[in-house]
Amino acid sequence: MFQTEVLPRLQALGGGRRVVRKTFSIAGMTESEVDARVAPIYKTYDRVQTTILAGTSHISLHLSRWLDPGEEPSDLIELASRIQEALGSAIFTTENEPIEAVVGQMLRQAGSSLAVAESCTSGMVGAYLTRIPGSSSYFSGGVLCYSNKAKTDLCRVPEETLERHGAVSGETAEALARGVRQVLGSAIGLSVTGIAGPDGGSAEKPLGLVFVGLSDDNRDLHIRRILPGDRDAVRERAAFFALACLRRFLMPESAAGKP
Amino acid sequence: MFQTEVLPRLQALGGGRRVVRKTFSIAGMTESEVDARVAPIYKTYDRVQTTILAGTSHISLHLSRWLDPGEEPSDLIELASRIQEALGSAIFTTENEPIEAVVGQMLRQAGSSLAVAESCTSGMVGAYLTRIPGSSSYFSGGVLCYSNKAKTDLCRVPEETLERHGAVSGETAEALARGVRQVLGSAIGLSVTGIAGPDGGSAEKPLGLVFVGLSDDNRDLHIRRILPGDRDAVRERAAFFALACLRRFLMPESAAGKP
Repeated sequence: MFQTEVLPRLQALGGGRRVVRKTFSIAGMTESEVDARVAPIYKTYDRVQTTILAGTSHISLHLSRWLDPGEEPSDLIELASRIQEALGSAIFTTENEPIEAVVGQMLRQAGSSLAVAESCTSGMVGAYLTRIPGSSSYFSGGVLCYSNKAKTDLCRVPEETLERHGAVSGETAEALARGVRQVLGSAIGLSVTGIAGPDGGSAEKPLGLVFVGLSDDNRDLHIRRILPGDRDAVRERAAFFALACLRRFLMPESAAGKP
Repeated sequence: MFQTEVLPRLQALGGGRRVVRKTFSIAGMTESEVDARVAPIYKTYDRVQTTILAGTSHISLHLSRWLDPGEEPSDLIELASRIQEALGSAIFTTENEPIEAVVGQMLRQAGSSLAVAESCTSGMVGAYLTRIPGSSSYFSGGVLCYSNKAKTDLCRVPEETLERHGAVSGETAEALARGVRQVLGSAIGLSVTGIAGPDGGSAEKPLGLVFVGLSDDNRDLHIRRILPGDRDAVRERAAFFALACLRRFLMPESAAGKP
């Protein structure tokens, strides 16, 4: 009914004008980094409106353009193509999908499988991944390794690693990722360990410090990041960051670059 | 500034009138069950406004009463006390706390510890529990037992139990709760297994069917429920339902009653 009855009337009211839009979802860059990169480009397109929105976890860049009757959005298409080139693989979708849908699709296409070990996020990564119907075809499960006992007994982290480097360290993150994929027989292991606050920070390991670990048969690695915000925000950002790192890990190496 | 500058002016504008409020958060009852129980009471208090709100997971009952200068809210206090009596232990807080704060406080006071095994919620229960700062003092961690391998290898569910009763069954829920508390050395085990959809339902085991398992040294039990809604809603409700069942499990038996 909207298509056949409402839309024509609205179009007539608008004098036949219509709007076209394009949205980019961006991971691993701040709002000001995105703006510094794309402002020199979009400022030369004065009929396209460009808006940058910063959410808790990621940045969205919105283009919109009003078209007169019969007009084509060729400037918007050109600007979108230049933005795509400028931001490259930092764009995780132009379809407004959540990142768990993007990595889910990559895992499915690769015929791969994933297990997670979550300390500071304690279930948020697993909860996001399984929002996608059919995620059981690539998601094996995981461990909420909140206590050290969960890290050693369920994720096979050597006690020596915990003693020498601490629960929040790159070494522990890698051991968690390796251990959880082994115990669950998955191709890939993903881990998150960090200090969400409000207590537990120190000069050496401040609040917001997060390590993401990744492991498969070919490599073990970790990524360190200090995330801003209160306990809820750090956890939310850490869960998203873990999924963004997983996306990089799943990309062909030539396309990946900086997480 | 609000207290010293704005509030007195607003109070003057309102002619010295003020409002007092009381909120009840209720688990394990539907909106119409709550209304059937309390309507005969609140209808006799015509100066107290009563509103029942149904969220995805629980029901809130709000009382508010405008007071003239110098008036006391004695009718609201009396009504609140009668509602408290009528709904009893279905009220999980009158302080607007989330249920994870309520069960966290109970676990802390009992000096107890908890491990979780989550299938269909896959991390949501663990994520809620650890929103509370200091939850590491009672939350040991858990297992996202999305796959059968996670159920058998990490939560010690006998393969025979899975084969005979299925992954979504009371027997599996109890075995998960018992297993996860044993592997993590916790006093209490809590599990959730269910069919969140959109696929996987059958006549015998419909979409929305959820079993919560609970285990400690003295007893193993499970609770069965069919939850309404789409995949997101079933998962959200299942996570809350698990926490509501845990709350019942932690209450002295005389105070518990129906979950």
